[in-house]
Amino acid sequence: MAHSILPCCSINSCLTTKTYLKNNNTCSAVFYDAVPLQTCKYPKTVLRSCTLRPRRQSIIYAAATPMSQEIEKSTLTGSPQSSSESSAKSKKVMIIGGDGYCGWATALHLSNKGYEVAIVDNLVRRLFDHQLGIDSLTPISSIQNRVRRWKSVTGKSIQLFIGDICDFEFLSEAFKSFEPDSVVHFGEQRSAPYSMIDRSRAVYTQHNNVIGTLNVLFAIKEFSQECHLVKLGTMGEYGTPNIDIEEGYITITHNGRTDTLPYPKQASSFYHLSKVHDSHNIAFTCKAWGIRATDLNQGVVYGVRTDETDMHEELCNRFDYDGVFGTALNRFCVQAAVGHPLTVYGKGGQTRGYLDIRDTVQCVELAIANPAKPGEFRVFNQFTEQFSVNDLARLVTNAGKKLGLEVQTISVPNPRVEAEEHYYNAKHTKLIELGLRPHLLSESLLDSLLNFAIKFKDQVDAAQIMPTVSWKKIGVKTRTVSV
Amino acid sequence: MAHSILPCCSINSCLTTKTYLKNNNTCSAVFYDAVPLQTCKYPKTVLRSCTLRPRRQSIIYAAATPMSQEIEKSTLTGSPQSSSESSAKSKKVMIIGGDGYCGWATALHLSNKGYEVAIVDNLVRRLFDHQLGIDSLTPISSIQNRVRRWKSVTGKSIQLFIGDICDFEFLSEAFKSFEPDSVVHFGEQRSAPYSMIDRSRAVYTQHNNVIGTLNVLFAIKEFSQECHLVKLGTMGEYGTPNIDIEEGYITITHNGRTDTLPYPKQASSFYHLSKVHDSHNIAFTCKAWGIRATDLNQGVVYGVRTDETDMHEELCNRFDYDGVFGTALNRFCVQAAVGHPLTVYGKGGQTRGYLDIRDTVQCVELAIANPAKPGEFRVFNQFTEQFSVNDLARLVTNAGKKLGLEVQTISVPNPRVEAEEHYYNAKHTKLIELGLRPHLLSESLLDSLLNFAIKFKDQVDAAQIMPTVSWKKIGVKTRTVSV
Repeated sequence: MAHSILPCCSINSCLTTKTYLKNNNTCSAVFYDAVPLQTCKYPKTVLRSCTLRPRRQSIIYAAATPMSQEIEKSTLTGSPQSSSESSAKSKKVMIIGGDGYCGWATALHLSNKGYEVAIVDNLVRRLFDHQLGIDSLTPISSIQNRVRRWKSVTGKSIQLFIGDICDFEFLSEAFKSFEPDSVVHFGEQRSAPYSMIDRSRAVYTQHNNVIGTLNVLFAIKEFSQECHLVKLGTMGEYGTPNIDIEEGYITITHNGRTDTLPYPKQASSFYHLSKVHDSHNIAFTCKAWGIRATDLNQGVVYGVRTDETDMHEELCNRFDYDGVFGTALNRFCVQAAVGHPLTVYGKGGQTRGYLDIRDTVQCVELAIANPAKPGEFRVFNQFTEQFSVNDLARLVTNAGKKLGLEVQTISVPNPRVEAEEHYYNAKHTKLIELGLRPHLLSESLLDSLLNFAIKFKDQVDAAQIMPTVSWKKIGVKTRTVSV
Repeated sequence: MAHSILPCCSINSCLTTKTYLKNNNTCSAVFYDAVPLQTCKYPKTVLRSCTLRPRRQSIIYAAATPMSQEIEKSTLTGSPQSSSESSAKSKKVMIIGGDGYCGWATALHLSNKGYEVAIVDNLVRRLFDHQLGIDSLTPISSIQNRVRRWKSVTGKSIQLFIGDICDFEFLSEAFKSFEPDSVVHFGEQRSAPYSMIDRSRAVYTQHNNVIGTLNVLFAIKEFSQECHLVKLGTMGEYGTPNIDIEEGYITITHNGRTDTLPYPKQASSFYHLSKVHDSHNIAFTCKAWGIRATDLNQGVVYGVRTDETDMHEELCNRFDYDGVFGTALNRFCVQAAVGHPLTVYGKGGQTRGYLDIRDTVQCVELAIANPAKPGEFRVFNQFTEQFSVNDLARLVTNAGKKLGLEVQTISVPNPRVEAEEHYYNAKHTKLIELGLRPHLLSESLLDSLLNFAIKFKDQVDAAQIMPTVSWKKIGVKTRTVSV
């Protein structure tokens, strides 16, 4: 197969003019073309002096199978990207896990804002649905159709790299061909209950998340030293300490001496623990290698609509309400819509930080636009409001009344091991300082949540609603049927 | 193959009388026999009312190959264990990593003290030596010969389970057959430089250590809920904060509220980070499942002799002086013995906790004899004295003079990323309170270290001494030759 690299100013710092097809057992790839307008004496600034030929959307597969004719054909057509998009904001953002709930919304948002976006995803989240017998409430298109639709609606291309970041050979190819300025890493198993199904899922979660992130760190060090890592952590890393939660670090005076140290972590599932491990690994590489990283300790995300997913029904985001992947508020809205009692786990005093998915995409954009310095490990607490589970139940009950729904609430035995009544006060000022303008729940509840749940209520599978995974009963025997 | 369980009072609470041979692709096993003297009305106390038939030493292999005739024959002979040993101290201790430096010394010590010991090890530490072209200064026997020699010298049996704890099927078999009361977990890749050789070794270290420990936790939950986990951590988990280091937890008053939280961790290699991950995982399972665990945050171990390894030359422990596995003080003594300058990394102000290997075995014994409570995650800082690298160089220089050695010291570029001048004051009182009587370096340096190094100085390979692994230069390309 052809493999040629046409000369350009600098492979690393300019849009290189190359066509590259690799044909072995692991990948096939087609990359875009760009022609430099002038001789590049200053490689670091020349990026903006290139005009782009019609961009060819590319897909790279980790699997041995070649691209199908159909996909190849459709992804190689499409309208040219406007030259304005390649100007001030032509920064390249790789979104790992870009087919998932937060990742998809973020990919579209950044593409819409003029960033050059590539999605890296092994699509395993879709496999989990098949294996567990659960599904998104909203119908979601294949990632290939999603990206095609985005192109047809907006004229903007999103590159696709389909493969597993735990496979370093695949990840290397993706990095070398896309040359990201920022990597947003959503590509982890993100459900606490999933990680507590059985031993093999616990091990999978920690292996997948920790090793995947290690590979990303090594890829940045090797191929893209200046690249800014924006990593999705979780507020769950902190647990529920009896003191205020700070953003990543706490200054401690002890026996007459003072130091600012990483905030102590008390995670409460193998999933949450995997994020704690990631945070420690990333912090080390910032110090040892000068990696620049932002850890976004995100709260519980709710909502489904963003400006971009609203543009076409084929761009619709997923909406999980099941006991494994459904987040609390989304689940409550579905329950209200179908007349199922809201299922509060235990006493319901569990308090967490929450945010609208429209704020998730804003926060990621702010982090990218204001990158960490080389060697800096920056931590932002990414949520906008705190609620207890009982608060949420009351809010959904009241909102339901306005729509004529009679909403009941029941307490079910808590499948988790967690404090059900506790102090909780977490700081979340850094993203506000960077310009975040929150969507508050009181404004979003009817519009983005309850009405959405009602629209799709005929699709609800009531069997998915109740919790089926117990923190205490997890065993070594693999659960082979849906949970 | 035969598989019979003869009736006894209680499978879980008494020495069961069983013969069990499993013959599949993963293991073969032979277990001991015991005959109850009387009908057991009180299963929990009957343990002491059994007399033992001559014990048959057992080996279980994870590999598909059956036991060789030679090993089978030799391990099935041997003198009976005296009945006194099965009395007050007949607790069963599984030592994972029992063929390693600390593990072997601990296995012999506990066996000598009357504990029933099983070693679980995949022997991969010996493979590392082959692959890296390094070797123990002292000649070490095969684990099979070591165990046979221990039996012939003392009459005491040590069971062998040869396999990988990352293979849960193997670990399950070992747990189900041995039924440990305590598990001492040394079975991890334990070198910081090894974890920094290249990407694949970094990934190996974190996968092996984290998943292995997860499997141990699941095995305890599933097969041996009361079993006490004694896990080897490292003082390196804490890093070098500018405040006093406490034992695992620190009480913080912040904005008028107070809580006792896990001490913040700042590890400085992928190896040290793997131990941080383990600590978080274990703490969670103590809380969620009621596991009882002691995390021994060990300092740098020095010395080679213990009472038990001194009994016969075939019981000799390993002594690493190379740049990858050699600990600082052992390396300095070897350098002094062969007339190589002591190699201080950078400024030499790096201060750490140190302990004699005779104290390692004491500490583990104390932890086992005073187990954590169900649900308790207990952390002990396991070292006896603090030294800077410059302190060690001075001590070895002075000790060398007494033996007529002229010792030089040079500073070499620090291959690590670490503070070379810093505050360091770490608490280490809990093991003292349990009865630890330290061997101090001033008493051990000549006897257990320098004289040993001199005895074996003709075996020294000078090429192994200098550091070859750089924290900053680690890359994704696998290093295929010795380092």
